[in-house]
Amino acid sequence: VAALNATHDPARRSWVESANDQRGDFPVQNLPLGVFRRRSEPASSARAGVAIGDQVLDLAACLDAGLLAGTPAEMPARLAVTGGTLNALMAAGNRASSALRAGISELMREGGEAAARARAEAARILVPMSEAELGLPAAINAFTDFLTSIHHTERGGRMTRPDSPVPQNFRHLPIAYNSRASTVVPSGHAIRRPNGQRRRPEGEVVFGPCDHLDFELELGLFIGPGNAMGEPIALRAAPEHIFGYCLVNDWSARDIQRWESHPLGPFLAKSAATSISPWIVTAEAMAPFRTAAFARPAGDPAPLPYLTDPTDQDEGGMDLGLDAFILTAHMRERGEAPARLTATNFRHMYWTFAQMLTHHASNGCALRPGDLIASGTTSGPTDEARACLSELNLDLSTRSRRPVALPNGESRLWLEDGDEVIFRARAERRGFVPIGFGECRGRVDPAPAWPV
Amino acid sequence: VAALNATHDPARRSWVESANDQRGDFPVQNLPLGVFRRRSEPASSARAGVAIGDQVLDLAACLDAGLLAGTPAEMPARLAVTGGTLNALMAAGNRASSALRAGISELMREGGEAAARARAEAARILVPMSEAELGLPAAINAFTDFLTSIHHTERGGRMTRPDSPVPQNFRHLPIAYNSRASTVVPSGHAIRRPNGQRRRPEGEVVFGPCDHLDFELELGLFIGPGNAMGEPIALRAAPEHIFGYCLVNDWSARDIQRWESHPLGPFLAKSAATSISPWIVTAEAMAPFRTAAFARPAGDPAPLPYLTDPTDQDEGGMDLGLDAFILTAHMRERGEAPARLTATNFRHMYWTFAQMLTHHASNGCALRPGDLIASGTTSGPTDEARACLSELNLDLSTRSRRPVALPNGESRLWLEDGDEVIFRARAERRGFVPIGFGECRGRVDPAPAWPV
Repeated sequence: VAALNATHDPARRSWVESANDQRGDFPVQNLPLGVFRRRSEPASSARAGVAIGDQVLDLAACLDAGLLAGTPAEMPARLAVTGGTLNALMAAGNRASSALRAGISELMREGGEAAARARAEAARILVPMSEAELGLPAAINAFTDFLTSIHHTERGGRMTRPDSPVPQNFRHLPIAYNSRASTVVPSGHAIRRPNGQRRRPEGEVVFGPCDHLDFELELGLFIGPGNAMGEPIALRAAPEHIFGYCLVNDWSARDIQRWESHPLGPFLAKSAATSISPWIVTAEAMAPFRTAAFARPAGDPAPLPYLTDPTDQDEGGMDLGLDAFILTAHMRERGEAPARLTATNFRHMYWTFAQMLTHHASNGCALRPGDLIASGTTSGPTDEARACLSELNLDLSTRSRRPVALPNGESRLWLEDGDEVIFRARAERRGFVPIGFGECRGRVDPAPAWPV
Repeated sequence: VAALNATHDPARRSWVESANDQRGDFPVQNLPLGVFRRRSEPASSARAGVAIGDQVLDLAACLDAGLLAGTPAEMPARLAVTGGTLNALMAAGNRASSALRAGISELMREGGEAAARARAEAARILVPMSEAELGLPAAINAFTDFLTSIHHTERGGRMTRPDSPVPQNFRHLPIAYNSRASTVVPSGHAIRRPNGQRRRPEGEVVFGPCDHLDFELELGLFIGPGNAMGEPIALRAAPEHIFGYCLVNDWSARDIQRWESHPLGPFLAKSAATSISPWIVTAEAMAPFRTAAFARPAGDPAPLPYLTDPTDQDEGGMDLGLDAFILTAHMRERGEAPARLTATNFRHMYWTFAQMLTHHASNGCALRPGDLIASGTTSGPTDEARACLSELNLDLSTRSRRPVALPNGESRLWLEDGDEVIFRARAERRGFVPIGFGECRGRVDPAPAWPV
């Protein structure tokens, strides 16, 4: 687990003035990595950058300007700018990304000799975020989605299995399924409502635009070095394979899901699109916000030894606030602010990410640099912490669904065309500078016409 | 759908004499593509080849020797030798691979001017199969596994859901799940028995080596050009995206599967390893063996319009015999022949591959060149056509399992360490030269020790 060091020092400020506004997401203590280009540049110019205040630090430009020459950050910076993705840096392990973080922090902080040289090159190495187009941070070859909130699991289960809402295996292992990497898109990419097959309540089987489109507010993790096939990862070693985190919207077609999922699990209900926030907040940046793993209620089984480690128990959780908002077409037209649907926190998750990784690789399954692992819907115990519409619209007293009222008088049972879903995340802890994740946004476009 | 042409002519023979033995898999009418190197060469030498009799035709060597210069096969041959995988050729579409097939057929056939020039270069362009190491034919970014045999589905269901063995959705859509591409390995790669969590019959939850390891005999398909996200594939257009076929062993840990699969489907039970045969038999090579789609029993629902096309109904099936064998350690020590466990045929499949593709992309999910789609266990209606141990060991009269007797006196309830599973496939039709798929082989090695 990443240790605290000078890069977390709350006294550290940046010469990029916008980074010092503690309401912002990207202070010098954060330094998340992404892949960007100027809007005016062709797609092939996509390259590694670091968010700092309202600017993007161009790592290739830093290298060209010699700002990292001869420092321990030079090699990892070269890996970061290789191939238009962060995969090579991810593969190099956390020591490399830690060296990069230390070097960038030196360049971006207020004071010091490296910072003075960087500041002199500001026009060359900084791109205003408003001029930047953010892409996928990695070539994602695999995307695994877990089910790690017991609150989400229980609420859904009370509709379908009221006597035993939480599946018997939930408390023994982190449940997961392989999802689809080919449709993971960065924030801002429009989402086409999927067509699909489902069964109407009266029994008719039909094909057409999904009627029950939902979002799921999740946290994602990018795999670092990973493991060779057949070589599992011990729980104590799992943190070495956690490169960093992003927000994930696991768009879900509930009507398609209900019809297709038995017996092999969700398939097309989940594979039309998955949106991620473009900035990867590194595991090291999150170090101040680690917390104990979820405190299991008395009577819950202890995890088996392969999922048990004292360090993971003490600091495998994360105190990270997660919010979901909706901006309807109507709100957009009237210039209204998005309405908050969800306020939850990652500390409510039943399993830690390290446990998820270790379980995932326990059969010898190979995890590779750039693989995306998502937590599943991050619902917490309270009503406001329901992290998808299929929980928000539940009336458990009558076991029925009713539209969710929005503050402007609109309401939503499910997402409508033109709705935009926006996620934000923020970690705060006394004695540290708060950091944020930026946004994960996606607008729902109408379904493609059929026949195609 | 690929048409018959001169490359299928049964009168065509090869100057590679071993290709003319009609008991063999690789006559001049087959010409499957793969990626190989000489055993003496480094892994980085992997390159495209074509199986012909007991030889591998080295496409790079053909290009170097100028044998395809100026022909329509030259461009596709250059794509085939790009990057050590067949992905670039797959992306180019079936017109390109058809031109390549025509050109190679001209080089390899008996008679003609191109063949004379090729024969003069035989030492340069042919590598004995016995000296070749076959690798993965493509960089596989996604692997989807379907459930398309109603016989497999019904037999399994009669154990767990005797009143309604076939799930309600089975006859309406091709059921599938995303499986794991990172552990797909070529034939010959040893398989480590997975460790995993499962619940003992008496209720105890344990972690350790899987006790119920099984094989599943499946047919695989490699995607050609594929579709962009959000742009579905019409059923009539699906054949344009079918590059070719291989054998697939979807190794399955039944005890892990039973415990983990509710509610999100199989995960670690399937992701420890998947073996594929290394030669891709192209869709065009299979053209003579196409047959009508499965004849649904009266009373089964007609597929919805998006899964209905007259050409697919008439020739979307394939008449392809599929066999599974076991070679135990005992048999190997004594030099005994492998024992046949299964003899089935792909014509028994309820859904066609075109229907699977169209359904897969119907929600806008992107299929990409080199994606692997597998059929699921290819069991047929008869007892000998049971295509996995969990069907072979079923005693439906008592709803219990009993070991499968092998001809040498051994028996198997599930696979044991040292067992090797071997698949073969062969297409035969009166008036055509039969073609085969080569082998898909994998030996079970002991589980890794734990703790790791």
